[in-house]
Amino acid sequence: MSEGALTAAVFGAAGFTGGETCRLLLGHPGVGRIVPTSRGTEAFERLHPNLAGSGLEFEDPETLAAAPGGLDVAFLCLPAGEAMELAPALLAAGVAVVDLGPDFRFATADAYRDAYGREHTARELLGEAVPGVSELHRERIRSARLVANPGCYVIAATLATAPLLRSEVARAAGPVHVAAVNGTSGAGGSPRREVMHAAAFGSMLPYNLEGHRHGPEMEDRLAEQAGDAVTVSLSTAHGDFARGIQLGATVAVDPVAVPSREELLDLYLDFFGAGHEGEFFVQVNDLERRGGPTDKDYSIYPSVREVLGSNFCHLGLDVDADRGLVKLVATIDNLGKGAAGSALQNMNLMLGLDERDGLRHYGL
Amino acid sequence: MSEGALTAAVFGAAGFTGGETCRLLLGHPGVGRIVPTSRGTEAFERLHPNLAGSGLEFEDPETLAAAPGGLDVAFLCLPAGEAMELAPALLAAGVAVVDLGPDFRFATADAYRDAYGREHTARELLGEAVPGVSELHRERIRSARLVANPGCYVIAATLATAPLLRSEVARAAGPVHVAAVNGTSGAGGSPRREVMHAAAFGSMLPYNLEGHRHGPEMEDRLAEQAGDAVTVSLSTAHGDFARGIQLGATVAVDPVAVPSREELLDLYLDFFGAGHEGEFFVQVNDLERRGGPTDKDYSIYPSVREVLGSNFCHLGLDVDADRGLVKLVATIDNLGKGAAGSALQNMNLMLGLDERDGLRHYGL
Amino acid sequence: MSEGALTAAVFGAAGFTGGETCRLLLGHPGVGRIVPTSRGTEAFERLHPNLAGSGLEFEDPETLAAAPGGLDVAFLCLPAGEAMELAPALLAAGVAVVDLGPDFRFATADAYRDAYGREHTARELLGEAVPGVSELHRERIRSARLVANPGCYVIAATLATAPLLRSEVARAAGPVHVAAVNGTSGAGGSPRREVMHAAAFGSMLPYNLEGHRHGPEMEDRLAEQAGDAVTVSLSTAHGDFARGIQLGATVAVDPVAVPSREELLDLYLDFFGAGHEGEFFVQVNDLERRGGPTDKDYSIYPSVREVLGSNFCHLGLDVDADRGLVKLVATIDNLGKGAAGSALQNMNLMLGLDERDGLRHYGL
Amino acid sequence: MSEGALTAAVFGAAGFTGGETCRLLLGHPGVGRIVPTSRGTEAFERLHPNLAGSGLEFEDPETLAAAPGGLDVAFLCLPAGEAMELAPALLAAGVAVVDLGPDFRFATADAYRDAYGREHTARELLGEAVPGVSELHRERIRSARLVANPGCYVIAATLATAPLLRSEVARAAGPVHVAAVNGTSGAGGSPRREVMHAAAFGSMLPYNLEGHRHGPEMEDRLAEQAGDAVTVSLSTAHGDFARGIQLGATVAVDPVAVPSREELLDLYLDFFGAGHEGEFFVQVNDLERRGGPTDKDYSIYPSVREVLGSNFCHLGLDVDADRGLVKLVATIDNLGKGAAGSALQNMNLMLGLDERDGLRHYGL
Repeated sequence: MSEGALTAAVFGAAGFTGGETCRLLLGHPGVGRIVPTSRGTEAFERLHPNLAGSGLEFEDPETLAAAPGGLDVAFLCLPAGEAMELAPALLAAGVAVVDLGPDFRFATADAYRDAYGREHTARELLGEAVPGVSELHRERIRSARLVANPGCYVIAATLATAPLLRSEVARAAGPVHVAAVNGTSGAGGSPRREVMHAAAFGSMLPYNLEGHRHGPEMEDRLAEQAGDAVTVSLSTAHGDFARGIQLGATVAVDPVAVPSREELLDLYLDFFGAGHEGEFFVQVNDLERRGGPTDKDYSIYPSVREVLGSNFCHLGLDVDADRGLVKLVATIDNLGKGAAGSALQNMNLMLGLDERDGLRHYGL
Repeated sequence: MSEGALTAAVFGAAGFTGGETCRLLLGHPGVGRIVPTSRGTEAFERLHPNLAGSGLEFEDPETLAAAPGGLDVAFLCLPAGEAMELAPALLAAGVAVVDLGPDFRFATADAYRDAYGREHTARELLGEAVPGVSELHRERIRSARLVANPGCYVIAATLATAPLLRSEVARAAGPVHVAAVNGTSGAGGSPRREVMHAAAFGSMLPYNLEGHRHGPEMEDRLAEQAGDAVTVSLSTAHGDFARGIQLGATVAVDPVAVPSREELLDLYLDFFGAGHEGEFFVQVNDLERRGGPTDKDYSIYPSVREVLGSNFCHLGLDVDADRGLVKLVATIDNLGKGAAGSALQNMNLMLGLDERDGLRHYGL
Repeated sequence: MSEGALTAAVFGAAGFTGGETCRLLLGHPGVGRIVPTSRGTEAFERLHPNLAGSGLEFEDPETLAAAPGGLDVAFLCLPAGEAMELAPALLAAGVAVVDLGPDFRFATADAYRDAYGREHTARELLGEAVPGVSELHRERIRSARLVANPGCYVIAATLATAPLLRSEVARAAGPVHVAAVNGTSGAGGSPRREVMHAAAFGSMLPYNLEGHRHGPEMEDRLAEQAGDAVTVSLSTAHGDFARGIQLGATVAVDPVAVPSREELLDLYLDFFGAGHEGEFFVQVNDLERRGGPTDKDYSIYPSVREVLGSNFCHLGLDVDADRGLVKLVATIDNLGKGAAGSALQNMNLMLGLDERDGLRHYGL
Repeated sequence: MSEGALTAAVFGAAGFTGGETCRLLLGHPGVGRIVPTSRGTEAFERLHPNLAGSGLEFEDPETLAAAPGGLDVAFLCLPAGEAMELAPALLAAGVAVVDLGPDFRFATADAYRDAYGREHTARELLGEAVPGVSELHRERIRSARLVANPGCYVIAATLATAPLLRSEVARAAGPVHVAAVNGTSGAGGSPRREVMHAAAFGSMLPYNLEGHRHGPEMEDRLAEQAGDAVTVSLSTAHGDFARGIQLGATVAVDPVAVPSREELLDLYLDFFGAGHEGEFFVQVNDLERRGGPTDKDYSIYPSVREVLGSNFCHLGLDVDADRGLVKLVATIDNLGKGAAGSALQNMNLMLGLDERDGLRHYGL
């Protein structure tokens, strides 16, 4: 563990998201103590064999929550309904809270009930929680006590579409069609026949086509960018990889003002900045502008492997001019930028640290 | 090789599609002689090690084409521009021709030029060639001399949407949004860095987002079903599997008449038939009607592995009622039902054989 | 289902092996009725979505076992201890029995107890059961009532080493070192965290390094070929594929008489026959003899994909001349030649059918 | 890029190993400038899309080699024969050199010629070059000007067997049987049909069974540990993953003194240290000693994913007591601990830095 001064708790550290949060914290220069919690009986290193040698061991969540005094920050990696029980006391004790679960993702208790089918028990915090797409909510996060990490699909979709939705190009746009493929870690760690290796290998597994819970949340975030209501058509599947999200978004634009790929690149590079001059973690693929391919090929679109293990989001874009369609592609690591990476980035903002601390490593 | 009476040529048998055509012909009870052709110098079994022991060896295509007299049927697995050179002489010699390439997929020479950038040299055949989605063009195929197998994506999309497009439900529908993921065999057999294993493993590779060549062809086939022009938004990628297509199609329907999943199932089961009472090769997932899942889960959607190596197309469907969206999923083996399987099925129809001959094996 | 006259039961058809047995029986020209059994409550097509449309449904095993009169053959795909309860009554009713589980793999009750930790309750059948490596026990199988399919690793290892072990070359050989990698279907269908997709993807999972149960069985089969006791060093792992076994066997031979690769090829081709002139299902890779590679490369060794879904076993071989080591490689589909394929091949032999019936399809 | 004071060159940075060296250097706190070289024309970010935003661009290797004055360290990621041309001038200019290729892996020019078929042109350096298994050659590396990183398989095999080979247990041991599976990145970046995704997916590809070049090198390193000559039986394959090595080593020990798993664990934990008290990068799996599994299962062996992207080596061990066999398993990332990770670790030692700098991140 590093020499830093901060103490961080990871509630719900038996799962994939909690484990990845621990992994990233172990490499954070400002964090000196990590306290993972679990109610289970299995050893930390059995659940997270990649962290063998880290010395981390589970502590009891109730005991920790009852005396949170020594904590600087708490990451909540919990099922729906549990974070809203824990957060008030942590905040009262002055602990910065980053919630990676769904409890604080909606502005109202009604919207939460619609999506998760339960009553909210900490409604007073719903208005205070700041959504955590770091690049888009940076200033609000800097002064927040409670940040609500959006769902992994939502982070990817928001970064992919924000420049377009904020521009004139999309004014006449209809629904945003999103087709997203997630690694099987997105299905959680509980054994289930459909996501066993023998079933999922060499395949893709569509799910929740009747409406994924991230749908309404995605509509909220995109509406925030567009300044107007947005309808999202969201189709989700698991792909034959453990980590990573490949998200494609298609937006039909006004046919009399279809932008060229060049114009779109300008729009996106203006928004996020180019290369290492812009947003560190959001990279727009403009390869043909830097001695890249002379004809269009795979290289102008991002792929999942590029961002694996990292906090990066890679964006690609194109235009189907004949049909007036803008095509956007975002790749993130669902456990990285989609969860634990964004969580650390938000912690860095909340605590006034360098935003990139602990997150500088590139993907595989 | 089997004891059958027929002789079949496979032009362009060095590639994946040609190899699969040979593989299926080896199991066809009516075929006694298979003649694969290649201009290359490599041994048949080096390119198709799965067919070791078959005794097949490449012959020279020019020699065979110059004397096609002994052939009953010819499968053309050739790059754009080559089938239109070969087909007239084969037809003149009385050989039944199934073209697995693009040369006869368009009704007009103009449409072909738009998609493939070359002039058509056998325009007189464009009107005669019958499109080869076996279940939808069965009667025309039975009396055809020349069948044009649609592209693999087109076969999947047409089967997935035909019942809906022919129904009242879709009358007010806008563009059909198709997001399709193909195995890397769909990228062809020529070594290329982007589709090497080390690059493609654990990833997805979007391509041709500016407009895939199958797009206009798909629009033709869907318009044929809808009885009206259809715009298709097509996004394509390669997934981390060698064979198979997972295709999702989203259709926004009239919000005041959104069908339920139950109603959609009725529509599809009426069209294709249920279980082994209906179309042998098209199976609609209605698992909840046969003691299946009591809550919605992965099992109600098809996955790629189910159809691997087979001529089956599995269909799944759902409804996002809040947004008036019908979601359709089709899985096929891109080399099976998407190419060689359909080709044999069409041959069976053309020659008056049992449609299922050589194709009865189920997926893995 | 086909038009054949035979009725086949598959006891334990909820698992991977039972499902594959059903899949192959559906394509067998001589089988007209298939009766799968399961004690579970889930629908057949939920467990075997690849067989959608087959019309198969589970029956109760006890009911069927109590009245086995109409059965011609029964396949037992059962956990240790269950087949020995069922087999006596089935045999008494004149049903041909192929056991795919471990109950009849050992010659003595002591050896069975050592490997599986339980008493044998049908000892009178241990002497009668014929081991089922079809190519090596063909004549005994033809007259058997009860065939015991060896374990999947054992079938691969026996075919890979038989020609060598029977030859002069191996007379001074020490232990046979076997390193085998199996698909995750080999771990069975019960959900378990270690073989979930998110855990096994992109990895390999060693297991049972203290001694796999197939070890002593493999020693029995190899000793049978060698005519002398054989010690096997067996290391097993699951690889990142659902189906298939890649098995490497290394045998140190007398350093003064190390064969060349050419001599080894002669030995193996003499034993199994060359190409389609020899054993249909066992193919020795002799690619350089048929206009193949001019320098050694990947192509001279078999790979798992070549045999996927089939009953083939592909063999490759080489010699490390500096160290006096013969290297053998066998690939089979663990559910095909390693289980259900061999089971049908054995049924064909027992019932006097063409050995290849229902098994003619090549790998993917 | 970081704020560090050091300048590092990466010769041959177009390939997988060079790219990974750049990736790790980008996260090294002491490195402020990275100079990758390539003779090719493609943009750095096209070859290494994961490093988008890093700002790195290729420079010409000849120009850099002619004026190496500003370099502190050079990493040579070059084909056989090229490093021996470059190294003398770099050393003369005072640049610390870590060679990741084969040129300095052998003690004599004869051994090099035997393995790589070419004459050595910098023989005077063969005696000076220090082998770079950091944990085993640490003191010599600290004072070296030129470190020769062993081959990836050699690093894994040496770490896996060193404690055993140095102990009494192995005194009577015969050949060490090594079966190693490498990711396809180990096959290099040049497009080749056999390692295209469509060919390698779902398969394993054995290669060089007649004797891999790492064989003699492995024998040298193991002999160094054993204090006596060691014969290695090495079988190599590529698995269905892009990165990572799973290496199994089997050693037959004196049957009258077979250690228990408990005794072996003691031996290995004594050698490498336990958990975070011992070697940071070498972790021995002793899970049952820390509240882990109560019966033996997958969890007591390492798997490839655990170390992906990291510099860790995970070790597992077991004993087949009936046959007197010690089974050892090592997993590393072939591009990490097997190449670029070890290279940075060795640089850290050579330059007097903290050995873990730039390498603290755990695997995925």
